Amino acid sequence: MAADGLRLWPLPGIPELTAGADLAALVLTAEPNLRNGDVLVVAHKAVSKAEGRTVDLEGVTPSPQARALGRQLGKDPRLVEVILGESSAVVRAQRGVLVCRTHHGFVCANAGVDASNAPGPQTVVLLPADPDRSARELRDRIERLAGVKVGVVITDSFGRPWRNGQQEVAIGCAGLLPLVDLRGQRDGSGRRLAATWIAVADQLAGAADLVRGKSSGQPVVVARGGRLPLLSEHGPGAAVLLRPRSEDLFS
Amino acid sequence: MAADGLRLWPLPGIPELTAGADLAALVLTAEPNLRNGDVLVVAHKAVSKAEGRTVDLEGVTPSPQARALGRQLGKDPRLVEVILGESSAVVRAQRGVLVCRTHHGFVCANAGVDASNAPGPQTVVLLPADPDRSARELRDRIERLAGVKVGVVITDSFGRPWRNGQQEVAIGCAGLLPLVDLRGQRDGSGRRLAATWIAVADQLAGAADLVRGKSSGQPVVVARGGRLPLLSEHGPGAAVLLRPRSEDLFS
Repeated sequence: MAADGLRLWPLPGIPELTAGADLAALVLTAEPNLRNGDVLVVAHKAVSKAEGRTVDLEGVTPSPQARALGRQLGKDPRLVEVILGESSAVVRAQRGVLVCRTHHGFVCANAGVDASNAPGPQTVVLLPADPDRSARELRDRIERLAGVKVGVVITDSFGRPWRNGQQEVAIGCAGLLPLVDLRGQRDGSGRRLAATWIAVADQLAGAADLVRGKSSGQPVVVARGGRLPLLSEHGPGAAVLLRPRSEDLFS
Repeated sequence: MAADGLRLWPLPGIPELTAGADLAALVLTAEPNLRNGDVLVVAHKAVSKAEGRTVDLEGVTPSPQARALGRQLGKDPRLVEVILGESSAVVRAQRGVLVCRTHHGFVCANAGVDASNAPGPQTVVLLPADPDRSARELRDRIERLAGVKVGVVITDSFGRPWRNGQQEVAIGCAGLLPLVDLRGQRDGSGRRLAATWIAVADQLAGAADLVRGKSSGQPVVVARGGRLPLLSEHGPGAAVLLRPRSEDLFS
């Protein structure tokens, strides 16, 4: 493998997390040889559970709007109530699909609220309240415990309007430039690169998913090498991946 | 690194391609040690150029529609003419952005027509006419020349409606299952995985982009290892990544 290659591998042995769990310590137990410049790619559910971002549907009373949407879409109205609570807007509610804009600004199905891999049969997992802060905190704690500066990307699976299937994208990021802007640069022929504005953190989120079993308890993947644009500071976070609403042609 | 890790590295020394170039032979010169199960992730421009899928704008006469759209969007009307020729529909034409549905069914900016990394100042590069066929042909030729069965993914950079930046996606695929459907399976708690339908080929396309310099003449990346769903046959191709128009909520 060339020296500029990238390696990705999942960390084994990270147990089911509960509120207050020290994810950084669990990561370091699973991989004691983290290096400066490694990037931890973490499925958000591990972070959300450690942060207590779960809701028991038994305690939820759906609003009239949630009941109506639930009927229309064939969804549990209590789940719809939780989704609406996480949303600033409903973007589409059609054919069983509820696409929302979350309070963070992500446009995704069900505002990121998910019942799979949840801790109990009536429990759903929310996105972290501030995934960029979660990424910074995990990065800081890894540095404090192990003395290494890693990058952190927190991910969720998003659908795409015109493509089947889902892919992991970055919802939180620290220590890595999420978006690399080459739009002013020139190609091999001296011509300006037309539209080269690379969503590195999203691509890394998807890359990590290739080595992780979905139901296998492997929320953390290590990425090492490659041309990853590491930062010594935390950097701007995944928030820079959000297209401004003024430039949105599709909601 | 755990045994289930994934490695990706770019192939050096692949020259600028011209029509009729033997990309498989160039790949094998750059990487004589390809193994069964390796996946070649190839930026489509290399394939398009080898297939002669370029257009010299000097020979293009724009239609009235192309002239009007060019004026509206601030684009060269000859380029718009080429884009419309590649399109079955214009999805959005606003704020300098022309999003089209290509004849293949991809929804993307400029129908994939691109002037960067093109062979001449007035030349633009189109998507391959049938990128799945291109992937199958490259795979077959690698097997014929070197006796190894590889997977092939052909990629392009697509924007996303609600996220800044672009990411590589699969437009052609052979020898790899592009889309893995776990929707019937259960998670660690025995609950059905809600929406786990993984766009593996897209994630691999993005992963490869992490190790490739955009303007550095590295169109081919090798991926080895991981949990890639390899196929002995060519498989369904990237066409299965296209969401049916009947399920499109956004164009």
